[in-house]
Amino acid sequence: MQGTMKALVYHGPENISLDEVPIPQIIKDDDAIVKVTTTTICGTDIHIWHGGVPEVESPRILGHEFCGEIIEIGSAVHNVKVGDRCAISCITQCGECFYCKQGIYSHCETGSWIFGYMIDGCQAEYVRVPHANLGCHIIPKELTDEDVLCVADILSTGYFGAENANIQPGETVLVSGCGPVGMCAMAASRLWGPARVIAVDIIQERLDFAIKNGYADIALNPKNCDIVEQVKKLTYGRGADRCIEGVGAAPTLQLALDCVRPGGNVSVIGVFEKPFELAMNKLWIQNITLSMGLVNANRIPFLIELIKTGKINMRPLITHHAPLNDILKGYDIFGGKKDNCIKWAVTPYEK
Amino acid sequence: MQGTMKALVYHGPENISLDEVPIPQIIKDDDAIVKVTTTTICGTDIHIWHGGVPEVESPRILGHEFCGEIIEIGSAVHNVKVGDRCAISCITQCGECFYCKQGIYSHCETGSWIFGYMIDGCQAEYVRVPHANLGCHIIPKELTDEDVLCVADILSTGYFGAENANIQPGETVLVSGCGPVGMCAMAASRLWGPARVIAVDIIQERLDFAIKNGYADIALNPKNCDIVEQVKKLTYGRGADRCIEGVGAAPTLQLALDCVRPGGNVSVIGVFEKPFELAMNKLWIQNITLSMGLVNANRIPFLIELIKTGKINMRPLITHHAPLNDILKGYDIFGGKKDNCIKWAVTPYEK
Amino acid sequence: MQGTMKALVYHGPENISLDEVPIPQIIKDDDAIVKVTTTTICGTDIHIWHGGVPEVESPRILGHEFCGEIIEIGSAVHNVKVGDRCAISCITQCGECFYCKQGIYSHCETGSWIFGYMIDGCQAEYVRVPHANLGCHIIPKELTDEDVLCVADILSTGYFGAENANIQPGETVLVSGCGPVGMCAMAASRLWGPARVIAVDIIQERLDFAIKNGYADIALNPKNCDIVEQVKKLTYGRGADRCIEGVGAAPTLQLALDCVRPGGNVSVIGVFEKPFELAMNKLWIQNITLSMGLVNANRIPFLIELIKTGKINMRPLITHHAPLNDILKGYDIFGGKKDNCIKWAVTPYEK
Amino acid sequence: MQGTMKALVYHGPENISLDEVPIPQIIKDDDAIVKVTTTTICGTDIHIWHGGVPEVESPRILGHEFCGEIIEIGSAVHNVKVGDRCAISCITQCGECFYCKQGIYSHCETGSWIFGYMIDGCQAEYVRVPHANLGCHIIPKELTDEDVLCVADILSTGYFGAENANIQPGETVLVSGCGPVGMCAMAASRLWGPARVIAVDIIQERLDFAIKNGYADIALNPKNCDIVEQVKKLTYGRGADRCIEGVGAAPTLQLALDCVRPGGNVSVIGVFEKPFELAMNKLWIQNITLSMGLVNANRIPFLIELIKTGKINMRPLITHHAPLNDILKGYDIFGGKKDNCIKWAVTPYEK
Repeated sequence: MQGTMKALVYHGPENISLDEVPIPQIIKDDDAIVKVTTTTICGTDIHIWHGGVPEVESPRILGHEFCGEIIEIGSAVHNVKVGDRCAISCITQCGECFYCKQGIYSHCETGSWIFGYMIDGCQAEYVRVPHANLGCHIIPKELTDEDVLCVADILSTGYFGAENANIQPGETVLVSGCGPVGMCAMAASRLWGPARVIAVDIIQERLDFAIKNGYADIALNPKNCDIVEQVKKLTYGRGADRCIEGVGAAPTLQLALDCVRPGGNVSVIGVFEKPFELAMNKLWIQNITLSMGLVNANRIPFLIELIKTGKINMRPLITHHAPLNDILKGYDIFGGKKDNCIKWAVTPYEK
Repeated sequence: MQGTMKALVYHGPENISLDEVPIPQIIKDDDAIVKVTTTTICGTDIHIWHGGVPEVESPRILGHEFCGEIIEIGSAVHNVKVGDRCAISCITQCGECFYCKQGIYSHCETGSWIFGYMIDGCQAEYVRVPHANLGCHIIPKELTDEDVLCVADILSTGYFGAENANIQPGETVLVSGCGPVGMCAMAASRLWGPARVIAVDIIQERLDFAIKNGYADIALNPKNCDIVEQVKKLTYGRGADRCIEGVGAAPTLQLALDCVRPGGNVSVIGVFEKPFELAMNKLWIQNITLSMGLVNANRIPFLIELIKTGKINMRPLITHHAPLNDILKGYDIFGGKKDNCIKWAVTPYEK
Repeated sequence: MQGTMKALVYHGPENISLDEVPIPQIIKDDDAIVKVTTTTICGTDIHIWHGGVPEVESPRILGHEFCGEIIEIGSAVHNVKVGDRCAISCITQCGECFYCKQGIYSHCETGSWIFGYMIDGCQAEYVRVPHANLGCHIIPKELTDEDVLCVADILSTGYFGAENANIQPGETVLVSGCGPVGMCAMAASRLWGPARVIAVDIIQERLDFAIKNGYADIALNPKNCDIVEQVKKLTYGRGADRCIEGVGAAPTLQLALDCVRPGGNVSVIGVFEKPFELAMNKLWIQNITLSMGLVNANRIPFLIELIKTGKINMRPLITHHAPLNDILKGYDIFGGKKDNCIKWAVTPYEK
Repeated sequence: MQGTMKALVYHGPENISLDEVPIPQIIKDDDAIVKVTTTTICGTDIHIWHGGVPEVESPRILGHEFCGEIIEIGSAVHNVKVGDRCAISCITQCGECFYCKQGIYSHCETGSWIFGYMIDGCQAEYVRVPHANLGCHIIPKELTDEDVLCVADILSTGYFGAENANIQPGETVLVSGCGPVGMCAMAASRLWGPARVIAVDIIQERLDFAIKNGYADIALNPKNCDIVEQVKKLTYGRGADRCIEGVGAAPTLQLALDCVRPGGNVSVIGVFEKPFELAMNKLWIQNITLSMGLVNANRIPFLIELIKTGKINMRPLITHHAPLNDILKGYDIFGGKKDNCIKWAVTPYEK
């Protein structure tokens, strides 16, 4: 399809605009062109906007979390066809390289996270999807875009964090930081049968939200109590078995390390901008495992299945909806954590 | 404590009676004497009653699933004290032998399943508990005996079956046979986040019970449908990812093998009386893993924690309650699957 | 490349011949045409020859274990190029289907084992290789064809058997049956650090071969001793921790089941033609895990690396070498277990 | 046994002496008194000597790695008897607490590492061993004390490091630091079948020793080359799959982090005295798992079995031998890394 479209373009730090740009075209045989039906703004987009991810070159269309309809496919695409409605993984994967063959799609040698980062993203009317045989997951007809929107990135990320945390049934999981990704980590943690999920945040509204929607069993606010002491009370004096860090900052990671019991796990899914002083002089003897990483998004079909059968419901996260026309407002509100916004969904451009 | 007590005694095939027998005494330093506050009748007791377990010598007090109060401890018992209210593992474990050190308590060299089998059991007013440092799990004060009664055996067995099934989040689990152990396997399977649990049985009341209590998502009765065909419909034509056999009979095991997908697991927790013809000529290429075994009961503290936080509720299984005085009636009703009895709880003898 | 070539063709039970047939051509975009530089005869080929695999339609070129040179590639092949010298997996894999994404290449929906079975195989001068992006593994220049020949099938199969056996360092592994695949299972078992590998076979020459080449530490011949008794003597009375069955027959599987300790594994890699009576009445309480299946061949690059660094050496298995001209003689000698033949390598046709 | 004995006593920083002290006596029912037949000096003892472990109260008999003969047992000891020759775990374990039941003996609630730290140790003629039912491992009669001496601590620690590193067969393992523990980590790594083990150290003699004794395949000295570059050359540009840090210092840990590939593991077994600045800003996206901890020593029987069957040989580490009379000289030479001393074995006091 030829012509132009609307797209949110990054032109450099603090400089984004909704521009008229050319519609993307097939470049490689296994590309697909997707008409974006729903997308979102992610915390990472806010980082880029503010110049926190300097490797992003301008102009660059942002966005990496979306659903859409296949409108054109390259000659080597055989797993989806024109007209299919799909959730698209934020991680592009070839399925053939050293990393992909081990399920570490996050380090695919010709993919990984590239949308809205190394190539143009999905905050637009159309987007080019490389390696389309593997990243496009058909949405069951009984589900809406918003039902599955989070699988593309944040729910997969929460799942990845929970998976790395090595949760055993009956254990106590603590999630340090209740942003959208933290909420997803809580919901995903439930898939391994913990006895309790403890949410920790300094924003009380988010704690209340986590409890109200059943993501957490217990909510603790460092403004109101000594977290380590409370966690020990809940765990026979031992500490949480597994902790997930969902922010990417020193205080939330330190809290996780302070709360975990010997032999436990600290699983980091936050994006860090700075080094962290790790108290190896105290931790070496604590038998802690610290994991981190970019989501592999290798369980999307299973997450969709869990949504379809009602075992996971992330729709409450989507607190705001507006067409692409209003995306700059979305950056302002979501980025500024205003108006109790947790997740801002972007619907198609309205002419 | 000296004197006599009431106990259900096996005197040989088809010959059990409620007798007056001596109260048991401490024999080894790590024994405890427990006053039984609640016990049950297990399917295995019925097997023994009918002579199906010939290695049981008579006279033998039956029973291996119980809660009670510690009334006396040997000199080497330090993990519980007189007055503690406990759920007692059906598996006796030393914690020191080759098997115990690997968590295979079911093959403890000086323990394993012995209650009501190799030594006197718990369908009595008092019972001697060997290796009391490891088998006695204190009941949280907010829980009743009946809340935790199943952890001693059938819930641990269901957990063991689900654990061996290697369930991954989002998968489909099929449980072949909806007796008490099958119900526990369903409830335990949920701890690994399946998208759906399918219950299969020919007794419609049990299927209805499984659905009503939330143990299963889908119930299939071979009298009404072709199970393999239905399971394939639910799983994109592949079959169930993991199957659990809960009866110990050829038809239920064959069904599990017929329903499992390539690369899946069949986990057996039923007690078999006969050999089984395994179609290795067809299965060798199917990448199936078949596991079986006696419960290790190594996760009881975690199961109690899950009950305490409301994540597991097996109380609905206990459909009947009566004092030890009526235990023969219990053998008749539970053993004969009469009166929709799923689990018969035995309360203390009433003088 | 057009023209004809020599190929070993199956025309029905007991009817194979070396025929002149057309050279295969590219059919799909991701096909490659490979000039076979070394191939072998596998026990499965013998089964097919004798009519034991009735689903094979005639005429069919047999063979599935080979090395060769890429001489032509389809338009979608990008991981190998013309001139590359490769070991080709006996398992064809797409890398994209439900099974491939979980590493279960043996059940690839458009691949699996098809060479010399569902499509023409490699006992020929040329062969068409579907899904060539994934099955072709470049041979390091310091290695010969015969160094890596076994990775295509039997070493991968031995590895698969050892992997499924769940060997822990310091344990005792028993391999029941010392054919080529059994030898590979022994060599692969060493990769998990067992304290001892026990080989069992009734052909003394094979036992001697296993010891001489360092595949096994101890060789036991049922003709000379009571295997179960000897294994118990070696293992503190417990039995082997893990057993691998390498034949596909009742006696070798029964031996494995008799020798394994409680909590252990029996891993089957033999190809069974008949059902097997599994003593579930005895085994249900033994906490055994029984696994089986067609090789995934998902670790070939790592096996090649181990061969390159001298950690595995399967060259001694290749006891006979002859050009394609003599392949009928190879079927006779290898198939009849004559002349101490363990593995028969087929070199190119000599005009 | 009453009377006095010789013992190496810590009296405060830089103050140790060989004193005449009372022979230890049974305190608890599960204690044993062991006559020390061989012990060693560990790097940790040197730390304590120099005041680096301030929680050690004086006077304290040092030492935690030893073999000996049981000469007296408490009334609850049943797994060993007087006269047994044993290797004693450096980790005391009850087998019953939350941690022991999960195999995390390093955090046993009434044990853990206590010898020569919280209670008197083994650099003496006799030592009291708490929880003797679990920590005493009988030495096979065909082995000497020195054959198994390392299992008590450093070989178990090396094993623990290798186990945490999650090595898969055919991978590349790098060990950063070739002290005695590093050598053990290399030997233990081999149990998981790596294609190559790379040793890194700045002391060339230690690298040569690692190669000569077959612990490492490749030795790299940062004084002579760029380690990261060399490691990438050996691993197709990716980096080592798994790295083990064996020193407890910033440069060796940083090296491990620099050398590991995405998706790999860094397993720390060194004892750190200072915090470490972890470059989370770079690592968050690298999918690294960082583990650390005190050895569990839960595989000693398997390590003894591996030594017995010749699969592991740590005797070359013991470069020096002298009676307890000369232990101060041992502290000087071993502690000062003089005379190419790797491990100093202490034989009984000679009157």
